[in-house]
Amino acid sequence: MTKPKGRNRPKTPYRKGRSGVLAGEGEAWIWGRHAVLAALANPRRKRLRLAVTRNAESELPAGVAAQVMLPAEIDALLPPGAVHQGFALLAAALEGESLNAVADPTHGLLLVLDQVTDPQNAGAIFRSAAAFGARAVIMQDRKAPPLAGALAKAAVGAAETVPHVRVTNIADAILDLRKAGRFTVGLAGEAQLALHEALAGPDGKGQGPGLVLVLGAEDKGLRPRVAESCDLLARIPTTGAVESLNVSTAAAVALYEAWRMRLAGKA
Amino acid sequence: MTKPKGRNRPKTPYRKGRSGVLAGEGEAWIWGRHAVLAALANPRRKRLRLAVTRNAESELPAGVAAQVMLPAEIDALLPPGAVHQGFALLAAALEGESLNAVADPTHGLLLVLDQVTDPQNAGAIFRSAAAFGARAVIMQDRKAPPLAGALAKAAVGAAETVPHVRVTNIADAILDLRKAGRFTVGLAGEAQLALHEALAGPDGKGQGPGLVLVLGAEDKGLRPRVAESCDLLARIPTTGAVESLNVSTAAAVALYEAWRMRLAGKA
Repeated sequence: MTKPKGRNRPKTPYRKGRSGVLAGEGEAWIWGRHAVLAALANPRRKRLRLAVTRNAESELPAGVAAQVMLPAEIDALLPPGAVHQGFALLAAALEGESLNAVADPTHGLLLVLDQVTDPQNAGAIFRSAAAFGARAVIMQDRKAPPLAGALAKAAVGAAETVPHVRVTNIADAILDLRKAGRFTVGLAGEAQLALHEALAGPDGKGQGPGLVLVLGAEDKGLRPRVAESCDLLARIPTTGAVESLNVSTAAAVALYEAWRMRLAGKA
Repeated sequence: MTKPKGRNRPKTPYRKGRSGVLAGEGEAWIWGRHAVLAALANPRRKRLRLAVTRNAESELPAGVAAQVMLPAEIDALLPPGAVHQGFALLAAALEGESLNAVADPTHGLLLVLDQVTDPQNAGAIFRSAAAFGARAVIMQDRKAPPLAGALAKAAVGAAETVPHVRVTNIADAILDLRKAGRFTVGLAGEAQLALHEALAGPDGKGQGPGLVLVLGAEDKGLRPRVAESCDLLARIPTTGAVESLNVSTAAAVALYEAWRMRLAGKA
């Protein structure tokens, strides 16, 4: 007999998550009106427990059963300071799509996040991805925050509607997307080319529908191998008065620029 | 004798601010490496107390005196969860500029915030204002959060470098700016005109250097009288998949679009 490994280890039924809240493995709390109503509307979201206030109950879809609780009782389920607005849902983690399912250039713009680990930023990026028509958000399996909690709150529902893909290696995923015929632009503050020039392409006609935007962590930017994997590097032009843009700001601006170009018929 | 009013009332030397931290009237804590170093570099920022860790002390400018404390001792000065990175500064509130000082159209782009009260959003907006070259941020006196705490942290130094103007009435300020020869564009999700069309102007040559961008609170948008005061209303084009953009995202996109147009020589 070998000693017990991985899946054979005795399971702890509940663990303290990073947020300090009791949730089982692969489960997490979602809170806030928009985030919870969007999760309830998502047929792929497995519900484990729904707690709402009396007021919030009236906003639930017909046939959805919930425990009615006092606001302070819901507070006690969630991390300190969570603004739940009377809605809290314990749900199973959402399964991502496969890279193959979104790789074809005709499927539309993709956004790749390299080591963006802050849930607020990642959530805000999902919201912008929905607003500016990204087909999916691609993240690294090991480093990405779960699509719940502060991420889901900041995404105000978009974590349920914008598909995500989890990959083992970001640089390899970029190379796979290029093999599938996509064009990848990485954002890097030190790049010479301005983003709108990169997206317009050499003839000003745009980069076509297969565009992939790649963003790195705020403090470190893209890792060298990820940057090398991109077709082009581009920068968002700024005055230089601040060292960098917030990563969710950079994502919003890049997604907006790509969307604006598609509206102008250039992609 | 009349009964004591306003300035004749006996003063409480210290009060609990919204953050729960003890600070005198017109004083507030600033924390985080970037935010504190930027405040120390700002000659207009009156310092009252500076607390740093031993490590952080080595990063202070020459001649700046500080109390060296343990990280946990600094924690105790600040609101729970404040990520201070070893730097905490108690400082007097920054005085704003007058509207007259920035009104002239040749002074460059202005950003007006109508009831944006969330410090994180306001701080992120200062950061974007610095990145995309706004001359000043105009806020309502009564409703605007102080340029300290979470705002200064999110602004990573830009709250010290981008001037702010506090006005009693936003709609009146907009009318004053128009009288001074400026052109004001308010962002409104329900507007027909797209932002880039509004900024390009009827002849595609831009709105000139006197542009003023006006943004409202996230949930309510611009108040009716503020919207009516603008020359034009415009929307940031989106897919419609989310109800709205985060206000700091909308500000970043609008400031980027205006900056992009200035780079193209259209303003």
